[in-house]
Amino acid sequence: AGNVAAGQEKSAACQACHGAEGKASVSLYPHLAGQHADYLQHALQAYKKGERSGGQAEVMKAFVSGLSDEDMADLAAYYQSLKP
Amino acid sequence: AGNVAAGQEKSAACQACHGAEGKASVSLYPHLAGQHADYLQHALQAYKKGERSGGQAEVMKAFVSGLSDEDMADLAAYYQSLKP
Repeated sequence: AGNVAAGQEKSAACQACHGAEGKASVSLYPHLAGQHADYLQHALQAYKKGERSGGQAEVMKAFVSGLSDEDMADLAAYYQSLKP
Repeated sequence: AGNVAAGQEKSAACQACHGAEGKASVSLYPHLAGQHADYLQHALQAYKKGERSGGQAEVMKAFVSGLSDEDMADLAAYYQSLKP
């Protein structure tokens, strides 16, 4: 399982679109706060593997391309820990 | 914009995985309650267009294949209206 504190440290790049506390102010971007970590990890892996296209998928793919499995687990744990 | 009441009527098929109130009890499925309607509509359209693969994407594609734009807008409005 991911590490919440490590995830928070790695979340700087996520905040522009998904909000400082995982609440996206622009409605095209999903809220992440309180979402299941397992789902978030799956989604990050899907973007990295090119399993999502259209919309903001290319942006997400660029952001996650440098993330390790551990990075994604940490980020997922962090966002799950936030209050929705 | 979608119609919340109509969305609720159309949500029966969604509830098995995403919960009766948009809270998914299985962690591989995302919570939908309180999510931005614009994002939910985008995601439904992406599944329908085949822009998502892997994971449960084929299941979602099958579920959304018969949905109209209006159906998707209604479902998105309904899930946005639920308390996360």
